[in-house]
Amino acid sequence: MNTKILTSEKRIIDLKDMRIGKENLPIFIAGPCAVESEEQIIKTAVALKEIGVDILRGGAFKPRTSPYDFQGLGIEGLKYLKKAGQLTGLPIITELIDLSYLDIVCEHADIIQIGSRNMYNYSLLKAVGKSDKPVLLKRGMSATIREWIMAAEYIASSGNENIIMCERGIRGFSDYTRNTLDLAAVPIVKQKTGLPVIVDPSHGTGKRELIMPMSKAALACGADGLMIEVHCNPDEALSDGAQSLDIDQYRKLKIALK
Amino acid sequence: MNTKILTSEKRIIDLKDMRIGKENLPIFIAGPCAVESEEQIIKTAVALKEIGVDILRGGAFKPRTSPYDFQGLGIEGLKYLKKAGQLTGLPIITELIDLSYLDIVCEHADIIQIGSRNMYNYSLLKAVGKSDKPVLLKRGMSATIREWIMAAEYIASSGNENIIMCERGIRGFSDYTRNTLDLAAVPIVKQKTGLPVIVDPSHGTGKRELIMPMSKAALACGADGLMIEVHCNPDEALSDGAQSLDIDQYRKLKIALK
Amino acid sequence: MNTKILTSEKRIIDLKDMRIGKENLPIFIAGPCAVESEEQIIKTAVALKEIGVDILRGGAFKPRTSPYDFQGLGIEGLKYLKKAGQLTGLPIITELIDLSYLDIVCEHADIIQIGSRNMYNYSLLKAVGKSDKPVLLKRGMSATIREWIMAAEYIASSGNENIIMCERGIRGFSDYTRNTLDLAAVPIVKQKTGLPVIVDPSHGTGKRELIMPMSKAALACGADGLMIEVHCNPDEALSDGAQSLDIDQYRKLKIALK
Amino acid sequence: MNTKILTSEKRIIDLKDMRIGKENLPIFIAGPCAVESEEQIIKTAVALKEIGVDILRGGAFKPRTSPYDFQGLGIEGLKYLKKAGQLTGLPIITELIDLSYLDIVCEHADIIQIGSRNMYNYSLLKAVGKSDKPVLLKRGMSATIREWIMAAEYIASSGNENIIMCERGIRGFSDYTRNTLDLAAVPIVKQKTGLPVIVDPSHGTGKRELIMPMSKAALACGADGLMIEVHCNPDEALSDGAQSLDIDQYRKLKIALK
Repeated sequence: MNTKILTSEKRIIDLKDMRIGKENLPIFIAGPCAVESEEQIIKTAVALKEIGVDILRGGAFKPRTSPYDFQGLGIEGLKYLKKAGQLTGLPIITELIDLSYLDIVCEHADIIQIGSRNMYNYSLLKAVGKSDKPVLLKRGMSATIREWIMAAEYIASSGNENIIMCERGIRGFSDYTRNTLDLAAVPIVKQKTGLPVIVDPSHGTGKRELIMPMSKAALACGADGLMIEVHCNPDEALSDGAQSLDIDQYRKLKIALK
Repeated sequence: MNTKILTSEKRIIDLKDMRIGKENLPIFIAGPCAVESEEQIIKTAVALKEIGVDILRGGAFKPRTSPYDFQGLGIEGLKYLKKAGQLTGLPIITELIDLSYLDIVCEHADIIQIGSRNMYNYSLLKAVGKSDKPVLLKRGMSATIREWIMAAEYIASSGNENIIMCERGIRGFSDYTRNTLDLAAVPIVKQKTGLPVIVDPSHGTGKRELIMPMSKAALACGADGLMIEVHCNPDEALSDGAQSLDIDQYRKLKIALK
Repeated sequence: MNTKILTSEKRIIDLKDMRIGKENLPIFIAGPCAVESEEQIIKTAVALKEIGVDILRGGAFKPRTSPYDFQGLGIEGLKYLKKAGQLTGLPIITELIDLSYLDIVCEHADIIQIGSRNMYNYSLLKAVGKSDKPVLLKRGMSATIREWIMAAEYIASSGNENIIMCERGIRGFSDYTRNTLDLAAVPIVKQKTGLPVIVDPSHGTGKRELIMPMSKAALACGADGLMIEVHCNPDEALSDGAQSLDIDQYRKLKIALK
Repeated sequence: MNTKILTSEKRIIDLKDMRIGKENLPIFIAGPCAVESEEQIIKTAVALKEIGVDILRGGAFKPRTSPYDFQGLGIEGLKYLKKAGQLTGLPIITELIDLSYLDIVCEHADIIQIGSRNMYNYSLLKAVGKSDKPVLLKRGMSATIREWIMAAEYIASSGNENIIMCERGIRGFSDYTRNTLDLAAVPIVKQKTGLPVIVDPSHGTGKRELIMPMSKAALACGADGLMIEVHCNPDEALSDGAQSLDIDQYRKLKIALK
């Protein structure tokens, strides 16, 4: 593997009162794919806080396959997110897709997400490696385990060892799911890097009804947390509605996972 | 999907005192990849019985990539298997690879296994569809969900609806595992066919150390059982040693899964 | 690779006045996916003979994903095929899917085809390895190069070294084609086995309009022939219509490839 | 597909005296994976000019899986490249991996390359979409046809329609090649976008001995050019040596392709 910094020695990331990576204390990250309005994100945040979520997610900059699809609210979205975080006390995670926004994302968010499309964007990895915020690194859509771990090593070797790895499904020939959720990656990457590894069953399956069983499976094989898309009205979501839970479905999931 | 027989209605397969597919009662199938000698299979069977395994597996006819690799003991292997079953009271599962052996396999085994390489062998599927033994149908190594379910429908439409589906990993670009274990197939196939679905983490990962976490994950997402390769001396196994547990490792697994 | 019989030494297969595998003399195999009626196959054969095709293809036994889809005319189809061959003087190739039909297929056909679904059916491979007819071995839908070559070695080690390898596309994540045509397999397998390697762009792409460019590419990288689906009325074909050429399109292709 | 700018209407890109995309006039791009020294790139450029190459390639910024592997000479490499271009009159293509280097890359190069790892880096795509240099857009390593074309649409919709598409192999289960060269993408993307499509058989196969047959196949199915790695001493190359031709091998290839 040839990592110099990441080893099998276990790492725990302290964020506010959370200890991400601590055994048997999985972290629950939830929120909409995209911040769509101030009202939407605040309403969602309040409901999620009440259910007991640990971290609020929401995309302000959305990397989309088509340049004509909704690209996120940008800096305005960041502001709404921060407000939702302040109102509820929830830490915020949001995706960075362009290093020119690094400073402003750091001002508004508690964890920086690097999405699948940017896992090989080494300039971006080095940049977040110089920030002091924890980084959530999603696996590239057909990244090997080695490539994914070496992407984390780019961040670590730039100075930031607070990295959370996120399995979100890989591309294959699947006829029923959006991606193939590769849960074996969880114990492998935990063992090879010592980093916390969480799972995103929303992107990993693309289907609402698979989120419950795959969340259970993820925790059973050692995942340190779950990132799940929750929308107050999935049928009207501007992106990824089919894989989003509504508030009530998420509440049931959260209870079932206790 | 266009199945005519298999529907989402739940099915339970009764075999001796087992109810395969019954909720929260997972079936444990274990044994060596191949029957290598009378002593080996009897020694293994006795140990597994004592640990509490439900069904003994062992290959008498081994489909191997190379014609020069060990092809199994054939009919002699079947006899040893049956003897091991009689001694311990364990039901026997073994693979059928050629329909000319259907009768003799049925005489010696309680469940007929169709391996991944024969999932598209429709002549074989129709033949076991006419037998009165339950059939364990492994997913083809790059079979879609639809192809796998339609293969089961071949068996069902020939008259035999006692089918156990077995997810054993699919082929992809994995650099750490032999296959990519596609656990999302478990809830999908259960819902679409009503059939019991079990998981083979041995072939699904190809690595001994991943069997424990992936077994836990499989049961967590609803698998009705686990098929695991256990060898009394994995380092000397004639096939698949690297993915086999020894007796002691299997005992620990079995305890951990309770 | 560990083959014992197949080496890089070039092999040519003599069939009637053809020398399959001879450099710069590609073999043209064409005909419908399935024999649908006496009239259909004779009409097609006469037209293809006139265009200059070398070998007539047609399926009598069709392995289909669904047990409820058209499964071929069976032995009746073999008879029509043979009649079409006798009328035109064209050698016949047809698929064998069940070893109980080996003798009757050998009586009616000049080349036995092993389809993708049966590439791992080692019983069938050994059986055709004992026949005296040339065998066309299609690559399994996700077979590695090694697995495919070892499947040929099963045939060769059973006594029959007259094997034609056929690349027909592999399974991947393609969103525009039925399969991913892996043309690099052509020079690799030719070099490793010495066997003739032909290409099936019909299954390899699944799209009529891609057959011309991919046929040119196949011959350019050294393919020893092309197997192409041609139907006298593709829109009414009982299987694979979308990837079949009509007679006139095939004539144009044949002229363009000269 | 939902492109607004790219249509099936054919486009030709004029660069100096070349007409990239003009039928039957394939463009030959060659050079080392990485610029390693002034001497290396000048020596290579002079030899390639003499052989009749059209465009000189060379990486100054190298995106590498490991942060500890050679990352390219950076701006110094750009200078050497430009000098080699000026000495020989050859236009230069080099990869841009970070938008902060856009201006300096544009000053030194005639075509900007976006590599596979950055095909989903929409910020970078928009940035080169505002430049006045032609852009060569490599396909992402597991990009669907649609994703690749929409990446081109990002560039086009930002104002730059001078885009050359480059097929370089996709990720799969290949056991003999580095990637699976998907030549069917050539006619598909040409038809869908009207853009020139070239092929990189060096990355597409990862093996020197496959470059000749796959180059022939690429041109046969309509590729508008070839990008091939050539190193004056492949065995000492700092990256990708196994897939690089030496000068003499490239000369033979160039002659064979005439």
